[in-house]
Amino acid sequence: MITLLARPRSLVADTTVTLEEEEEHHLVVRRTAPDAAIELVDGEGARAEGRLALEGRRLLVRVLRVVQEPAPPATILAVGAGDRDRFALLAEQLAPLGGTRLVPLETVHTASVATRLRPTHLERVRRRAREALKQCRAAWAPVIEDPCSLAEFLARAGAGRRWLAELTGKTAPSFGPTEPITIAIGPEAGFTAEEQAAFAAAGFEPVRLAPHRLRFETAALAALTTAWLARQRGGYG
Amino acid sequence: MITLLARPRSLVADTTVTLEEEEEHHLVVRRTAPDAAIELVDGEGARAEGRLALEGRRLLVRVLRVVQEPAPPATILAVGAGDRDRFALLAEQLAPLGGTRLVPLETVHTASVATRLRPTHLERVRRRAREALKQCRAAWAPVIEDPCSLAEFLARAGAGRRWLAELTGKTAPSFGPTEPITIAIGPEAGFTAEEQAAFAAAGFEPVRLAPHRLRFETAALAALTTAWLARQRGGYG
Repeated sequence: MITLLARPRSLVADTTVTLEEEEEHHLVVRRTAPDAAIELVDGEGARAEGRLALEGRRLLVRVLRVVQEPAPPATILAVGAGDRDRFALLAEQLAPLGGTRLVPLETVHTASVATRLRPTHLERVRRRAREALKQCRAAWAPVIEDPCSLAEFLARAGAGRRWLAELTGKTAPSFGPTEPITIAIGPEAGFTAEEQAAFAAAGFEPVRLAPHRLRFETAALAALTTAWLARQRGGYG
Repeated sequence: MITLLARPRSLVADTTVTLEEEEEHHLVVRRTAPDAAIELVDGEGARAEGRLALEGRRLLVRVLRVVQEPAPPATILAVGAGDRDRFALLAEQLAPLGGTRLVPLETVHTASVATRLRPTHLERVRRRAREALKQCRAAWAPVIEDPCSLAEFLARAGAGRRWLAELTGKTAPSFGPTEPITIAIGPEAGFTAEEQAAFAAAGFEPVRLAPHRLRFETAALAALTTAWLARQRGGYG
């Protein structure tokens, strides 16, 4: 079955929703039957069953049934705001791997990255994170925050587990299935000694994610897989 | 310190090695000091300390000391031979995440992928897998095999653990730190029921890697992270 995106909070049973132009075009290209069964997610937890309907020349969806899914446990990645293209690739993988929030960190070593993520690129990164729901079928889209400094980030970091991805760290410990977690990933050139000290002072424990040094976007994916697995073990082990 | 690639089995203490043209160019661009300390890996387990030396207009490396590292435990990914660009991205992440071998599988659903990996693309994929050693500093390069059919692959699959990545599978069990593992990842459109039956008959156990459906290259990275973590737990848990 095809999964499509709906506007947040637009899904109500026994109503008809219009599709975004891009979605409509996608269905036409795929030559989808005009009364095909469709799944819709709105990125804020609503998942609907629906059926396509042709109204004049427009494709609409009749919403038959809506289920509101509980929000996934808070799984926050704070990642050095490096190359924007690799950041966008990472943003797409957040929802399928269970990431709920991405904070681009402006650090000492991201300042010299010519292609670094800047506020003007966020729109595209957010769109790609949301578009990814169609493929992975998750009902919740991750939140992509504005880039912020390490000091700002640490001042408002939430409760729960705190990990700092670090090759010299220990293997990830298990933790409770609903406990929030925040994982910090350095930029290509790493965090400075001063930045590392700030993380340590804020209670971030060094955790190792792989046998060798990783690129930042790969480290971010490995962190999400590790956190998901550590939660599974914490719940059942 | 800069890590460079050397030709396989070219590293011998108290000798001088020439660099590949691309490596030499890279050092010139970076304005590396002509007597800088350098690390070299050969992709077959040798790691050397060396020092740059200028001979006429050529940059050479005087090899001071060589250590042969043991091969990492066999960690084999068999992945549906989908889009070649995403396959190349995956190949680059193999060594840093502990993957030792990549088998592109020709399956029922890869046959219709227009951009699928073909034998002519292997040279590039292999080069990128090897180039990645410079960033992650691993001494062993992964082997990238020629594409093969599922029947061929199953006929010669090695001993050890066998996992099939599957959203309905169970959480990964721990296993011994040196035990070989083979993990199969379906192409975008998945394995057919017949292909799944062939995996089951060959003793592949369905293992879940994430909360939602993953793209094939993300599934492959998640599989390597999961296997590495399961080995760590098997060794110490």
